[in-house]
Amino acid sequence: MQRLNTIAEQRAWTKEQHAAGRQIGFVPTMGALHAGHISLVKKARAECGADAAIVVSIYVNPTQFDNPEDLERYPQTLDADIAMLTAAGCDAVFVPKTAEIYANGHATFVEVVGPLVEGLCAVARPGHFRGVATVVTKLFNIVQPDVAVFGQKDLQQVLIISRMVTDLNLPIRIVIGPTVREADGLAMSSRNRRLTPDMRIKALGLQRGLELANRAFKQSEVNAVKLAEFVYNETLVHPGVDVDYATVVKLPNLVEVEHADDQCVLAAAIFVDGVRLIDHVHLGGAAIPVNVEADS
Amino acid sequence: MQRLNTIAEQRAWTKEQHAAGRQIGFVPTMGALHAGHISLVKKARAECGADAAIVVSIYVNPTQFDNPEDLERYPQTLDADIAMLTAAGCDAVFVPKTAEIYANGHATFVEVVGPLVEGLCAVARPGHFRGVATVVTKLFNIVQPDVAVFGQKDLQQVLIISRMVTDLNLPIRIVIGPTVREADGLAMSSRNRRLTPDMRIKALGLQRGLELANRAFKQSEVNAVKLAEFVYNETLVHPGVDVDYATVVKLPNLVEVEHADDQCVLAAAIFVDGVRLIDHVHLGGAAIPVNVEADS
Repeated sequence: MQRLNTIAEQRAWTKEQHAAGRQIGFVPTMGALHAGHISLVKKARAECGADAAIVVSIYVNPTQFDNPEDLERYPQTLDADIAMLTAAGCDAVFVPKTAEIYANGHATFVEVVGPLVEGLCAVARPGHFRGVATVVTKLFNIVQPDVAVFGQKDLQQVLIISRMVTDLNLPIRIVIGPTVREADGLAMSSRNRRLTPDMRIKALGLQRGLELANRAFKQSEVNAVKLAEFVYNETLVHPGVDVDYATVVKLPNLVEVEHADDQCVLAAAIFVDGVRLIDHVHLGGAAIPVNVEADS
Repeated sequence: MQRLNTIAEQRAWTKEQHAAGRQIGFVPTMGALHAGHISLVKKARAECGADAAIVVSIYVNPTQFDNPEDLERYPQTLDADIAMLTAAGCDAVFVPKTAEIYANGHATFVEVVGPLVEGLCAVARPGHFRGVATVVTKLFNIVQPDVAVFGQKDLQQVLIISRMVTDLNLPIRIVIGPTVREADGLAMSSRNRRLTPDMRIKALGLQRGLELANRAFKQSEVNAVKLAEFVYNETLVHPGVDVDYATVVKLPNLVEVEHADDQCVLAAAIFVDGVRLIDHVHLGGAAIPVNVEADS
């Protein structure tokens, strides 16, 4: 696997792939890789074909952190990341530096407006999605991929990026990879590394609440407040847990609704002793593999 | 010359040029073409070489008009435009429709922030440069040119676009073509079509004021207020003329200064019976060809 440390190196690699007639599949990440990321690399390979060139970027983007402490604490595990990508058959890893990405008085931002950025994570994280849209646009223009793959766990993010790609006429196909979960049902996230065993037990209330809501919906409960209550009930029983939001929203614009239907997701964010975790369930969709009886 | 009416037609043309190994030179316009635009087409040819493919877009972008009346009155002369481009040896003209450019709930904007968008035309035209940056990003992603050429007359615009191209890592080289003037010194503009002979006489005060300031600067006047006064004095003598601004700013960020040096321009915008005209002079630079004695 090639390691590309500068924009010039990435551009040269891209040029080489295009000259050879190879498609480029791209997975942008902030590192601290886990099996969820690796599933996206494999998804990129499956979408683009065996002949394609797959590149992963690892870059912790400062402009998407509204909280400087959160940025500082974000896990960085570059050597392990590179080993995982090599093992997964990734062709290149792009590891740029902030001094180059935001050089010389950077002053341009890409911003999606409207309902997609008015609810859920946008409320507690002002500027977050502007930072995401900006850095993803930059990475797309540097890497020039044919296909880019994002995880469904960050649902609002991937819908915003899809909107942006359509609106800015970027010649890139966005593909969504399904959420990968631990054996106990916890959605994989780089932030899970910060959970102690005790915090982990508290965190499991999130997907248990989502799955209980999903079961209730399948048994005809459509009241959004009642569906959200499952998340509150399963999480707030633990000391040190706060619920940022638990909201029923309709796809694809994520507008909050009072009555759920099968175009809706219940999305939630909680804090477990200060660590922010998000997850969601497509109402009426596949069950989240949790043991609903345990710990209740 | 090929006429491309849809995004798909433009993309197919671009693909064809790239497959043939040809560079693409691009001149985005809002139509109502004049000799200034044609000079940009020729500049694109000179920059990209005889083998290159040159494409001009004609699109009156609604998101850059803060004033709906101004949008409605913007001159449209498509048949004449196409004849001029054909005569100039242009290879293709891209004439998209708003229904396609801003389709399906468009909600993404590109915005430059900071000093470049805090003064001059940005003050009187809120949202104008956001609309320009957004549509130019879209056109760049559709046309995928190697080189794009903009006129120096719209100095703030081309500096904002250059900033945006750098910041978003767009793989495009921005080239500036010099302002083309009528025999009487008036900077060419599509809006000049709206000037009656009487209004035209009033309009000439603008470049006369700029040139008098330039002469004063060359004779050691550096006080920005005094330099700007030449514009006020030469224009406000006419009934129906208003000065929007006359300001000495420093390149490349267009920060207003109190004392001019040779890195400065005096930029001005006036209204002549409601028609907005802009012009500027690089202090210490080439003279504007005006008859300073006439009409004073």
